[in-house]
Amino acid sequence: MSDLLNKHVLLAMIFSVGFTFSAWSQTDETPSRDALMLESIYKETLSNAKAYDWLRFLSLQIGGRLSGSVEAEQAIEYTKTILNDLGLDRVYLQPVMVPKWVRGAPEYAYYETAPGLSTTVPITALGGSVATPSMGIKAKVVEVKSIEQLEKLGRRTIEGKIVFFNRPMDPQIIQTFQAYGGCVDQRYSGALEAAKYGAVGVIVRSMNLRKDDFPHTGSMSYGDSPINSRIPAAAISTNGADLLSATLRLNTDTEFYFKQNCRAFPEVKSYNVIGEIRGTVYPEEIMVVGGHLDSWDLGDGAHDDGAGVVQSIEVLRTLKAIGYKPKRTMRAVLFMNEENGLRGAREYASEAESLGEKHIFALESDSGGFTPRGFQFDTSPENFERIHKWAALFYPYFTDRFELGGSGADVGPLKSQGAVLAGLRPDSQRYFDHHHSDHDTFDQVNKRELELGAAAMASLLYLMDTYGAEASN
Amino acid sequence: MSDLLNKHVLLAMIFSVGFTFSAWSQTDETPSRDALMLESIYKETLSNAKAYDWLRFLSLQIGGRLSGSVEAEQAIEYTKTILNDLGLDRVYLQPVMVPKWVRGAPEYAYYETAPGLSTTVPITALGGSVATPSMGIKAKVVEVKSIEQLEKLGRRTIEGKIVFFNRPMDPQIIQTFQAYGGCVDQRYSGALEAAKYGAVGVIVRSMNLRKDDFPHTGSMSYGDSPINSRIPAAAISTNGADLLSATLRLNTDTEFYFKQNCRAFPEVKSYNVIGEIRGTVYPEEIMVVGGHLDSWDLGDGAHDDGAGVVQSIEVLRTLKAIGYKPKRTMRAVLFMNEENGLRGAREYASEAESLGEKHIFALESDSGGFTPRGFQFDTSPENFERIHKWAALFYPYFTDRFELGGSGADVGPLKSQGAVLAGLRPDSQRYFDHHHSDHDTFDQVNKRELELGAAAMASLLYLMDTYGAEASN
Repeated sequence: MSDLLNKHVLLAMIFSVGFTFSAWSQTDETPSRDALMLESIYKETLSNAKAYDWLRFLSLQIGGRLSGSVEAEQAIEYTKTILNDLGLDRVYLQPVMVPKWVRGAPEYAYYETAPGLSTTVPITALGGSVATPSMGIKAKVVEVKSIEQLEKLGRRTIEGKIVFFNRPMDPQIIQTFQAYGGCVDQRYSGALEAAKYGAVGVIVRSMNLRKDDFPHTGSMSYGDSPINSRIPAAAISTNGADLLSATLRLNTDTEFYFKQNCRAFPEVKSYNVIGEIRGTVYPEEIMVVGGHLDSWDLGDGAHDDGAGVVQSIEVLRTLKAIGYKPKRTMRAVLFMNEENGLRGAREYASEAESLGEKHIFALESDSGGFTPRGFQFDTSPENFERIHKWAALFYPYFTDRFELGGSGADVGPLKSQGAVLAGLRPDSQRYFDHHHSDHDTFDQVNKRELELGAAAMASLLYLMDTYGAEASN
Repeated sequence: MSDLLNKHVLLAMIFSVGFTFSAWSQTDETPSRDALMLESIYKETLSNAKAYDWLRFLSLQIGGRLSGSVEAEQAIEYTKTILNDLGLDRVYLQPVMVPKWVRGAPEYAYYETAPGLSTTVPITALGGSVATPSMGIKAKVVEVKSIEQLEKLGRRTIEGKIVFFNRPMDPQIIQTFQAYGGCVDQRYSGALEAAKYGAVGVIVRSMNLRKDDFPHTGSMSYGDSPINSRIPAAAISTNGADLLSATLRLNTDTEFYFKQNCRAFPEVKSYNVIGEIRGTVYPEEIMVVGGHLDSWDLGDGAHDDGAGVVQSIEVLRTLKAIGYKPKRTMRAVLFMNEENGLRGAREYASEAESLGEKHIFALESDSGGFTPRGFQFDTSPENFERIHKWAALFYPYFTDRFELGGSGADVGPLKSQGAVLAGLRPDSQRYFDHHHSDHDTFDQVNKRELELGAAAMASLLYLMDTYGAEASN
């Protein structure tokens, strides 16, 4: 684009701003109080946000922070210090026991088309997997596209082999989280199911729409199957999966070797980190904005969910900076152990229950630090209809897609309190390029995109604070 | 995000799809013919697009392709070959004379706070600038924030000095093209204006919202000022600009040195590249989809405008692949010399005029290969009202923001024919991180984001073909 286009763009802006204003002031000649408040929030965040600097430290100085790790403890200390420095009404740690699973020495894998002819491929142990025997596992491979296919193939075909789950994410689905939902059963239950037919190990195609060399980890479960029936499971990169599949088409006797050294330890004590601004009118009504402080151990967890953590803190910083005094109590909650246990979320909801706290609203950011497109709300259709009217206020910020739907894993347990739940919905196209892999790194987060998310969250919190979370308020 | 969230996401999808369908079939029980056609277009593009592979070749095998360069000629040959392979009704080159400006040896710059105490900073000559003398220029620096400020400072302050234009893009503006529009006068006219007060050179802060080390070039103009009054102009990276500004605050006598070796050569012959599918019903009505084939010489021009080029070709590939036979004639036009002359666009419109061709619609993609958000239309408010009804069809694809506004520089000259003009509007947040710099590279383009843009363009072309471009049709 040259400067010549620029004249067109300027014209466009004039038109566009006119069009925009009409969306939220069709009757008024001047912007509404709410429109002015959103403008003030966005200006503050886009000019003075600290979120990106906090994320830089969390990502580059601390790094991946799996539950129970030293890094997770460092992240607790660091974010508590930030919250303290904001001068909130209350900052505290909420103890919670979390699982501790450790990857150990890096995984190693190759396939062998003939003795001595081998090609290494990038793999990573799935979270919660058992290790291979110390000498590794070497076996022939059965490629399948689904768990259902296991039954058709039966024990005679599968026994003694490594099952290779290779159903890719569907590129025709626009929202990538939906494509992820259509594949993740292979990762979560593949080992449990394959073991029933005598498989000795499981290799799963990474949940990634891109063709690259990053294997993507993520949680898996053995259910309550006996310890000695549990087989090791690893993810293979998408390029690796395509290579392996092509090789198997040429030679079905191809042998695959892998070795992994992961191990589960006894549970350890960890914490949710919480910062609070006390409400001036209805202090007993609590509104939560949050993300999860733990991440997988690969990469540095900048998108998943460093972004949500720093955005949540930024919401409080921004509202304080513009001098906003909430009527209701606002809390930034940095949940521990979302990735492999959800213990922090359960503990938070359970303690809220036993303290008799009343949560009216909980908003999570856990879909990456990309340009926000809108929010999803988990509430009644009637209440959603009311909330949906606010969408027009977000039109100037390109964040006006409000939908009924899900929210976030960490705020989920608050549903039983009757809270309205919501999730920030950023652009989803690049999320799974990074998710749970070495490619989830700070340099992949854009400062403005991150800040636009924080400003949108602060704006929604302001509206909920002003009008209450339910239609009856 | 763990698999636990996934259940929420799946629920969300169910809600969301229901909500989505209601947007475009409120009266019908079944999706409309148009909705089904868009679905078919998107599925084809997201499954079988070649756009990303073409862009890889254009970016990595050819690279930056400034008008008049060998690379520009290679790009003409390459894209002509692609169009030929698509089996279109007609593929042809349209000759056009273009300027040829060459950067020469890399630029070099440092500032000196005391003799022997110097710091180098990254600069790049602005497109069209004259060279420095062969020994370079060394002078004291006057920092200004605007062209208007020059007059206030006057010749006494400016004469013999280097003027440093340092007004940053405004981070509070949501749409980054608008922020660009608020700064680019410094780059385009800074040298012309500073020379009037006796400045010996001009350094301009790069048009980039990010703090980094990439200087961003772009066109500038000396107007019709005498040759011997023209002073060299360069862009400095945003980090470099901040450093220089801080240094000047400490020591106003700081001297700046820069040397650049650029040169203008006589005009050379080049080409627009055009591929056509002839209309079956109204072949005389022409619809254009295009981007510009030239780029700046820095980086490889993947976003600006390799993306628009391969998307435009992809539109024709996709429509042919699904067996769509347009009623009206469709052309992919790859314009030459958008960046520093717009000669290709003018030649195309001028030849259309002299041949008596009737262009009813022209759509450009020249805002980067990012996730599309919608389109802007340059047409009458009445006709826009009609077009705006189609936006609901794009809701399932997150590309439903239709606005009255600008279109694109290359399609602009077709306005005098009465054509409806339009521009694809992708997410703008990251565009100026890359624009006209070494950071505009293939690895910064996401395959899905690129393809979603192409599918949106093909869908809009289908609708225009079906319903005609003007309300009167």
